[in-house]
Amino acid sequence: MTKLDMGNDVDAVVSRLRALLDGPGLAVEQTMLKTGWVSALPQLHQLREQVKRLHAWAPHLQPTEGGLGMSLVEFAKVSEVLGRSPIGHWIANCQAPDIGNMELMHSHASHELRTRWLTPLMAGDIRSCFAMTEPEHAGSNPVWMSTRAVLDGGDYVINGHKWFTTGADGAAFTIVMAVTDPAGLPHKRATMILVPMDTPGLTLVQNIQVMGERGGDHHSHAELLFENVRVPYANRIGHEGQGFELAQARLGPGRVHHCMRWIGICERAFDLMCRRAVQRELSPGETLGRRDTVQHWVAECRADIDAARLLVLEAARLLEKGGVMLARDQISAIKFFTANTMQKVLDRAIQVHGALGLTDATPLALWWAHERGSRIYDGPDEVHKQSLGRSILKRYMQ
Amino acid sequence: MTKLDMGNDVDAVVSRLRALLDGPGLAVEQTMLKTGWVSALPQLHQLREQVKRLHAWAPHLQPTEGGLGMSLVEFAKVSEVLGRSPIGHWIANCQAPDIGNMELMHSHASHELRTRWLTPLMAGDIRSCFAMTEPEHAGSNPVWMSTRAVLDGGDYVINGHKWFTTGADGAAFTIVMAVTDPAGLPHKRATMILVPMDTPGLTLVQNIQVMGERGGDHHSHAELLFENVRVPYANRIGHEGQGFELAQARLGPGRVHHCMRWIGICERAFDLMCRRAVQRELSPGETLGRRDTVQHWVAECRADIDAARLLVLEAARLLEKGGVMLARDQISAIKFFTANTMQKVLDRAIQVHGALGLTDATPLALWWAHERGSRIYDGPDEVHKQSLGRSILKRYMQ
Amino acid sequence: MTKLDMGNDVDAVVSRLRALLDGPGLAVEQTMLKTGWVSALPQLHQLREQVKRLHAWAPHLQPTEGGLGMSLVEFAKVSEVLGRSPIGHWIANCQAPDIGNMELMHSHASHELRTRWLTPLMAGDIRSCFAMTEPEHAGSNPVWMSTRAVLDGGDYVINGHKWFTTGADGAAFTIVMAVTDPAGLPHKRATMILVPMDTPGLTLVQNIQVMGERGGDHHSHAELLFENVRVPYANRIGHEGQGFELAQARLGPGRVHHCMRWIGICERAFDLMCRRAVQRELSPGETLGRRDTVQHWVAECRADIDAARLLVLEAARLLEKGGVMLARDQISAIKFFTANTMQKVLDRAIQVHGALGLTDATPLALWWAHERGSRIYDGPDEVHKQSLGRSILKRYMQ
Amino acid sequence: MTKLDMGNDVDAVVSRLRALLDGPGLAVEQTMLKTGWVSALPQLHQLREQVKRLHAWAPHLQPTEGGLGMSLVEFAKVSEVLGRSPIGHWIANCQAPDIGNMELMHSHASHELRTRWLTPLMAGDIRSCFAMTEPEHAGSNPVWMSTRAVLDGGDYVINGHKWFTTGADGAAFTIVMAVTDPAGLPHKRATMILVPMDTPGLTLVQNIQVMGERGGDHHSHAELLFENVRVPYANRIGHEGQGFELAQARLGPGRVHHCMRWIGICERAFDLMCRRAVQRELSPGETLGRRDTVQHWVAECRADIDAARLLVLEAARLLEKGGVMLARDQISAIKFFTANTMQKVLDRAIQVHGALGLTDATPLALWWAHERGSRIYDGPDEVHKQSLGRSILKRYMQ
Repeated sequence: MTKLDMGNDVDAVVSRLRALLDGPGLAVEQTMLKTGWVSALPQLHQLREQVKRLHAWAPHLQPTEGGLGMSLVEFAKVSEVLGRSPIGHWIANCQAPDIGNMELMHSHASHELRTRWLTPLMAGDIRSCFAMTEPEHAGSNPVWMSTRAVLDGGDYVINGHKWFTTGADGAAFTIVMAVTDPAGLPHKRATMILVPMDTPGLTLVQNIQVMGERGGDHHSHAELLFENVRVPYANRIGHEGQGFELAQARLGPGRVHHCMRWIGICERAFDLMCRRAVQRELSPGETLGRRDTVQHWVAECRADIDAARLLVLEAARLLEKGGVMLARDQISAIKFFTANTMQKVLDRAIQVHGALGLTDATPLALWWAHERGSRIYDGPDEVHKQSLGRSILKRYMQ
Repeated sequence: MTKLDMGNDVDAVVSRLRALLDGPGLAVEQTMLKTGWVSALPQLHQLREQVKRLHAWAPHLQPTEGGLGMSLVEFAKVSEVLGRSPIGHWIANCQAPDIGNMELMHSHASHELRTRWLTPLMAGDIRSCFAMTEPEHAGSNPVWMSTRAVLDGGDYVINGHKWFTTGADGAAFTIVMAVTDPAGLPHKRATMILVPMDTPGLTLVQNIQVMGERGGDHHSHAELLFENVRVPYANRIGHEGQGFELAQARLGPGRVHHCMRWIGICERAFDLMCRRAVQRELSPGETLGRRDTVQHWVAECRADIDAARLLVLEAARLLEKGGVMLARDQISAIKFFTANTMQKVLDRAIQVHGALGLTDATPLALWWAHERGSRIYDGPDEVHKQSLGRSILKRYMQ
Repeated sequence: MTKLDMGNDVDAVVSRLRALLDGPGLAVEQTMLKTGWVSALPQLHQLREQVKRLHAWAPHLQPTEGGLGMSLVEFAKVSEVLGRSPIGHWIANCQAPDIGNMELMHSHASHELRTRWLTPLMAGDIRSCFAMTEPEHAGSNPVWMSTRAVLDGGDYVINGHKWFTTGADGAAFTIVMAVTDPAGLPHKRATMILVPMDTPGLTLVQNIQVMGERGGDHHSHAELLFENVRVPYANRIGHEGQGFELAQARLGPGRVHHCMRWIGICERAFDLMCRRAVQRELSPGETLGRRDTVQHWVAECRADIDAARLLVLEAARLLEKGGVMLARDQISAIKFFTANTMQKVLDRAIQVHGALGLTDATPLALWWAHERGSRIYDGPDEVHKQSLGRSILKRYMQ
Repeated sequence: MTKLDMGNDVDAVVSRLRALLDGPGLAVEQTMLKTGWVSALPQLHQLREQVKRLHAWAPHLQPTEGGLGMSLVEFAKVSEVLGRSPIGHWIANCQAPDIGNMELMHSHASHELRTRWLTPLMAGDIRSCFAMTEPEHAGSNPVWMSTRAVLDGGDYVINGHKWFTTGADGAAFTIVMAVTDPAGLPHKRATMILVPMDTPGLTLVQNIQVMGERGGDHHSHAELLFENVRVPYANRIGHEGQGFELAQARLGPGRVHHCMRWIGICERAFDLMCRRAVQRELSPGETLGRRDTVQHWVAECRADIDAARLLVLEAARLLEKGGVMLARDQISAIKFFTANTMQKVLDRAIQVHGALGLTDATPLALWWAHERGSRIYDGPDEVHKQSLGRSILKRYMQ
C-alpha cells in the first residue's frame, strides 16, 4: 500500500496513530510505566518501525526529508493524539527537544552541519539535546547566563554549567547557548553552537533526579559541564549574537507542540476518568459515575479541555499566518492556560481512580509527577502572565 | 444612504453599534445607572431611532420583518458588542425575553397571533414576557409545575402562580407555560398560551426586589397571579403538550445569545479594568498596572474570555448546522463556563477599581449584583454540569 | 430583673441577642430588606429599647459608660451573633463607624469634646462618621491625601473632598483626617479633627449610589465637601500629626469587629443554606440536600467558617495581650481570609436558594451586593497580602 | 543528663527534635532523597539512637513503655515538628502504620500477643503493617471487603487479596481485616487478626510502584495475597465482628497524627519557599520575593496553614475530651481541609523554586508526588465531605 492509498490527510494519520497507541502501543506503554524507558527501548524501536509502515513518521518534516509535510495546525492535531501516551511523540520522531533542533537546523545550520547531524537526526538514527538553562540563573530570565564561548583560532572554546538538558544521556550532539559578546545588548549576547557529546571537556555530570526518578536515554534531564570544550567556529547555528532570537523563534511552534501534547494528555486522562467512573462500584450496583460530584467534574473537564484546544488551534493559525511576533500574546496565553487545565484534569482523574491512580496501572501518576514541570519549563506561568499582562496594558497607556 | 451603502456585513454592523455605545450611548447608560431604567426611557427611545438609522435594528429578524437577516453565528457577534452596555440589546430590539418570543411566534404562532402581536413586537411598539418559573417548584426541574390551563368551551381557563417573569411590567402580553394534560408524560404535559396582560384575572402582584432593586418596565422581574384567566383556545402557541419541547428549542439559541452578551460584559469589564490599571496611581508615578498581581489578572482574564468566546462560537456553529439536539452538550457547557468566567472577570475588574467599582460610575456594580443570576436562571450551573456529565458518561457505559 | 440576675457572661448575652434577632428581630429585618433602612427606623428604635432592657447595650463600653465592659475577645463573640442580621450591630449601638469613634474619643479626645459629643454618642442619641478616604487617591495608600487643615487664629480651616464616609447622612459630627504638616514625614502629616456636620462650608454632596442603592441615615456612604470649614483648634483629637497613628490603632480592633461580624454573616448564610437544602424539593421527595454536591458545599463551608473563626479569635487574643503592633500580621491575615470566606459562603448559599436567593426574602442578596466591599474597604485584599507577605519575608532576609 | 534535666514538656521536646532535624537530620534526609530509604537505613538507625538519647523516643507511649506519655494534643505538636522531614516520624518510632498498631494492641490485644509482638514493636526492634484495603473494592467503602477468615479447629484460615499495605516489606507481622460473619450487619462482619508475615500462604506479591517508585522497607506499599493462611484463633485483636469498630477508633487519632504531620510538611515547604524567595535573583539585585505575586502567596499560605493548625488542634482537644464519636465531624473536616492546604502550599513552594523544586535538592518533589495520596487514603476528600455534609444536614431535618 502506498502513502496515497492509506490517505495522508490529517484525520487519516490521526486515526492510524490512535489505533496504534490504543492497540500494540498500550503494552509498550505498560512496559515503560512499570520498568522504565530504557528497558522499553526494544519495544519502542519496533513501534517506530510500525509508525514508518503506517506512513506517520515525522509529520512535521517535509516529504523530501522523510516526513508528511504537515502545516503547524495539521501537526497540532497529530501532536494531540500522540500526547495520549508518554511514548507517543518519540515513536513518530517528533519528540522534544529533537523536533526543535530539527526545525532550527533546517533553517539556520550550514550545509555541512545538516548533512553530518540533521540527516541522521531526521531518520531517527541519532538523538540530540539543547543546553540552555543554568542552575545559577533563573530560567525565567533567558538573557541572563554565564556560559561563555570564546574564539580561539578557528574554534570556540566553551566553558559553562547547564542543567535540565533533556535527553542528553545517549544524545549524539547538543546545541549549546553561550555568551559570545558579554558587552552586547542583553538580547544580542548569546550564540548557538553545535557540540558533539563526545567532545573532550564536555561531561554529563548526572541525570538529575526529577520527582524521584533519574530516568535515562531520551527520558532524562542531565546536568552538563563544559570545561574548555573546543569546537570549530563552523559549528555555529545562525549568526553570532543571534542565539536569543533563534531561541524565541524556536519556542513559538514549540509551545504549540507542547500545548497540543498536553491536550492529548488531558483527553487520555478524561477517557480514563470516565471509564473508571462508569465501572467502579462504591457499593454493589452504585457506580462512582452516579455521583453528581463526579458528573460535575466530567462536565467541567470537558468544557475546560475544549476551551484549551480551541485556544491553542487559534494561536497555531495565527502563528502560521503571521509569525511568532504576531502570535506572541496568544502563545503566552496558551502556555499557562493549557498547563493549568492539564493539572486540574489530572488531579480529578487521579481522584476518581483512588489508590489505583497513584500506581503504574495508568500513566496518570507519571504525568502528575513529571508534568508538574509544565508550569515551570519554557517559562513559568508567572513569566507568561506578566508578559501577556504587560503587553495588553501597554496598549491602554496610549 | 441605503443599507447597502453602509455595509451590512457583521463587522460593519458591529462597528456602527460599538461607535454608538461608546459615543452617545455612554450618557444614556449613565442616566440609567444613576437614575434607573424607567427615567432613562426617553433617552433610550432616542437611541432606538439612531439604531434604526444605522440599519442595525433587530439583527436576528429577516429583512422582510425589518431586521438584518443574520445567522446565529453572525448575530452572536452583534450580541457581544451589544452586551458591552446594559442598554445594548434593548436599543436594537433584541433583548430577552422578547427575542425568544419573536423566534417562538415566528415558527409556532398562528397567522392571527402573529399579525396581532408579533408584528408590533418586532417593530418595538410593544413588549412581551414569558411566564414559566414558579416559586413553589425548583426552576431547575422544568417539567414540574402547578399552573393549569383547562379547556372550557373554546377557551382556556388558567390558574397559577409565576414569578421572575422578566419585563412583565408594561408588557402587552405574556406567553405562559401551563399544564394541560396532567396525566401525560412529564415532558408532554404543558402547553404554551399567549395571554394579553390586561386579561381579567391576571394580576402583576409585584416587581420582585432583586438585589435590592425593584426596577420597572423592561428592567424588572414580576410575580404574576393567574386566577381564572380566560383566553381563546386559538391563543395556543404550537400544539397541546408541546410546551416543554418549544421551551427547549427556544433555550438553545437563547443560551448562545446570553453567553455572547456575557462575553460583551466581560470585554467591557476588561477594558474598564485595564484603563483603570494604567491610570490609577497608588503613589505618585506608581500605577496599579505596574503590580504583577494586576498584570496576572489581566492575562488570566484575557485567556479566559478568549476561551469562552471560542467555545460559544463553536457551539453556535454546531447549533446552526445540526440543531439543538446535536449541540445540546455544547450548549450546557457554554452556559456554566461563560457565566463563571463573567463572574471572575467582574470580580477582578471591581477589585482593580476599588471603591469606585462599587458605585454607579461604571456598570460593574450593576452587573456584579444582577448577573449573579446568570448562574441560576435558564438552568443553574449544577443542572447543566449534571446534564453534560451524564450525557458524556452514558457514552462510556456501552 | 437586674443585670446580675440575667447573667452577664458572654454566653448569656449572646443567647439573649440571638433570641431577639431570631424572634422580633426577623420582622424588622424584613422591613429593612423590603423597604429600606430609613423606613425601618421606628421599628429599629423599638429594638434598641429591647436591647437595653436585655442588658445587652454597647457591650464594648465600660459599665460606667452604660456598657457591658467586655474585653475584645468577649465582644468578638457578641459581634458574631449581631452579624447574623444586617440590623444587629446598630440595635446594640456598636455599629461602625460609631464604635470606632467611641474608642478613639474615649482615649484621645479632650474632656470637653467627650462631654459634648461622646456622651450622647454612647447613649445612642446621636450618630457620627469618619471622613478619611478621598476619591482622588487610592484608599490603599492611607498616607496620601489632599485634604488640608490650616491653623488660622485659634481655628483650623479645612478644605478637601472625601467620599465613602459611612453614615454621614444624619450624623451629628464627623471626625476628619486632614494634612496639617504637608512637609512632614508621610506618616506624620495628618491630624484628626472633630467637625460638627452643621458647620458652615461642610456639604454632603450626595449619598453615593452603592450597588444600585443610595440608602440613607446610618445605612449610607456619603460624598463630603469641605470648603473653608472652620472649627476651633480644640476640636483636634490626639496630637497634631498623630492622625495616621490613631487611624492604625483604631483599625486593629476594628478589623476584629468586622471579621467577627462577617463570621456572623457566614453562620446565618450557612443556616439558611442548610435549611433550604433539606426543604427544597427538586422533584417530589428528592431534596436538594440529598445531592452530594450540596453536601460537599455544606462541609467545605463548615470547615472554612470554623477555620476563620479560630483565626480571628486567636488574633483578638494576641491583640488584647500585645497590642496592634504585635498582632499586625495576624490582623492582616484575618482581614483577607475572612472576607474571602464570606464571599464563598454567600455565593453557595445563594446558589442553593436559586432565584429566591436573589430576592429580599433573605439578607443573602443584600450581603452579596454590599459586602463585596469587604474586600476593598479598610485595605483591599492585595494590600493586606502584600503587607503580610513582606513582613514575613523580611524575617528570612537576615 | 536525666529526662528531668532535659525538660520533658512539649516545647522542650519539640525544640530538641527540631534541632536534630535541622542539624544532623538534614544529611540523612538528603541521603534518603537521593538514594532512597533503604540505603539510608544505617544513618536512620543512628538518628534513632540520638532520638533516644534526647529522650524524645515514642512520645505517644507511656513512660512505662519507653515513651513520653504525651496526650493527643501534646503529641500533635511533636507530630508537626517531625512532619518537617520525611524521616521525622520514623526516627521517633511513631510512624504510621506502626503507631496505630501500637495503640490498637495496647487496648485490644491479649497479654500473649502484646508480649510477643507489641513489646519489640514499641522498642523499634520490629516493624508491622495493617492490611485493610482491597484492590477489588473501593477503599472509600470500608465495610465492603472480600477477604474471609473461617474458623477451622482452633485456627482462622484466611483467604484474600490486599494492597496498599504500607510497610509490609520487612515487617514482622500484619494485622489483617477479614470477614468472619458474612451474614452479619455490614458494620459487624469483619474481625482483626494478627498474622506473622512468615506464615505459610502469605505472599508479598510486590511493592506497588507508587508515583514511579517501588520503595522498600518502611517506605513501601505492598500487594499481599492470603491463600489458606492459618493462624491461631488467639491471634484475634478485639472481639469477633469488632473489626470495623476498632478501625474507626484507630482512625480518629490517626487522622490527627496525619494532619499534624501535613502541617509540618506545610511549615517546611513554607520555610523553603520564603528562603528561596529572598535569595533567588531574577536579575541582578531583583529577588523573587520582591514580586507582589510571591508576597501574596506567602501571605495566603501563612493564613491557610495557621487556620489548618488551629482547626486540627481544636479537633484534637475535642477528641481527647469526648472521644471519636463526639469529634467525628471535626475529624472529617480536618482531613480534607489540611490535605488540600498541603497540596496548595506544596504547589506554590515548588513554583517559587522553579526547576530546582522538581529535583531531590529538597523534599518538595517527594511530597508533591507521594502526598497526592493524602487526599485519597484514610477516606478520600469526597467521602469526608459527604459524611460531614450529611451529618450537618441531618440536624436541620428535625
